[in-house]
Amino acid sequence: MRRRLAVAVGLAFSLVPVLPWAQPAGPVARVVVQVSEADPARWNLALNNVRNLQDELGAANVAVEIVAYGPGIGMLKFDAPTNSRVSEAIKAGVTVQACENTMRNQQLVRADMHPGVTFVPAGVVQIVKRQHQGWAYLRP
Amino acid sequence: MRRRLAVAVGLAFSLVPVLPWAQPAGPVARVVVQVSEADPARWNLALNNVRNLQDELGAANVAVEIVAYGPGIGMLKFDAPTNSRVSEAIKAGVTVQACENTMRNQQLVRADMHPGVTFVPAGVVQIVKRQHQGWAYLRP
Amino acid sequence: MRRRLAVAVGLAFSLVPVLPWAQPAGPVARVVVQVSEADPARWNLALNNVRNLQDELGAANVAVEIVAYGPGIGMLKFDAPTNSRVSEAIKAGVTVQACENTMRNQQLVRADMHPGVTFVPAGVVQIVKRQHQGWAYLRP
Repeated sequence: MRRRLAVAVGLAFSLVPVLPWAQPAGPVARVVVQVSEADPARWNLALNNVRNLQDELGAANVAVEIVAYGPGIGMLKFDAPTNSRVSEAIKAGVTVQACENTMRNQQLVRADMHPGVTFVPAGVVQIVKRQHQGWAYLRP
Repeated sequence: MRRRLAVAVGLAFSLVPVLPWAQPAGPVARVVVQVSEADPARWNLALNNVRNLQDELGAANVAVEIVAYGPGIGMLKFDAPTNSRVSEAIKAGVTVQACENTMRNQQLVRADMHPGVTFVPAGVVQIVKRQHQGWAYLRP
Repeated sequence: MRRRLAVAVGLAFSLVPVLPWAQPAGPVARVVVQVSEADPARWNLALNNVRNLQDELGAANVAVEIVAYGPGIGMLKFDAPTNSRVSEAIKAGVTVQACENTMRNQQLVRADMHPGVTFVPAGVVQIVKRQHQGWAYLRP
């Protein structure tokens, strides 16, 4: 019992700085980026943020996932103005997720979307799930 | 000592995915949703996000708390255009919190507000507190 | 083995509420505040949020760091309309960080900025790092 208390108290002071910023294996940082507005300027800001994260930390040291949903889904249509930048991000290792729930509401099918994106049933659930898994959250 | 180290190292790699997404009892997910803009379109987006979380995860599996403060307080006035949707959210188990600090600044009293809301002294403190308690943060 | 499991299971249920909200020493709460829009009204909202956090919790009980980057960098120019409020925040113990990456892109040098600010290489990295260190995130 005493040992369990000691461990618990020790962890209470040590865990947050240890986890996951100083995690020795795999990406140092993990970030889920929300895109939920119908504004190409905002899409470019989000893509700038992602590129800066990779430039500063090194692409191998940061896992980045963009989740587009609601009015933000437009960023991932195949004819979006940000199309080539989305391609570059995917080539650089970024995961780009489109919300199928939003697609259904806007009568979009997979063929309407950027060919490199992947799909999640609900963007908002993905964002919450990632945070519960220890990912940082960025809302550009 | 060696055992404590082993436990600490083991936890450093295992804890984040375990906590609280895979937590076996009680709500799987916990989300605090910020409403801080004076824009009914944004209020509806926030309410859509909340409904999607409940639809996808099941209302019993996700604790959702909406916190309205600053220019967002208007969402919780008794005559807001989102009034019936706020009622539905509360009926579905969502906690809806109004910031008393903002209410004081805008000379609003409890009788001016949607009858189903509860009150926190400061919305911004509530949002920070929830995150420190392990809740995910959503800023629609 | 059995003891390690017991500790792990115990922590799975006890750790989140313990850490770091109830942490006995140092600031109770830690918050990183994002300023990324070119909108003085939003800058004032962010500064209101910061002041409310300090008023409600006591300045000694909350560590607050404002990070301005991208279009938000304007808040920290020496001639910004929020200049005196930024001074007050710094005097009250708030750390105010300007993104050097953004400054380079906008051809700003340190002499162009509010004299009380400090500098980080990349604002977005700082925001992610703080979250991984257990800080709450606020996006006004």
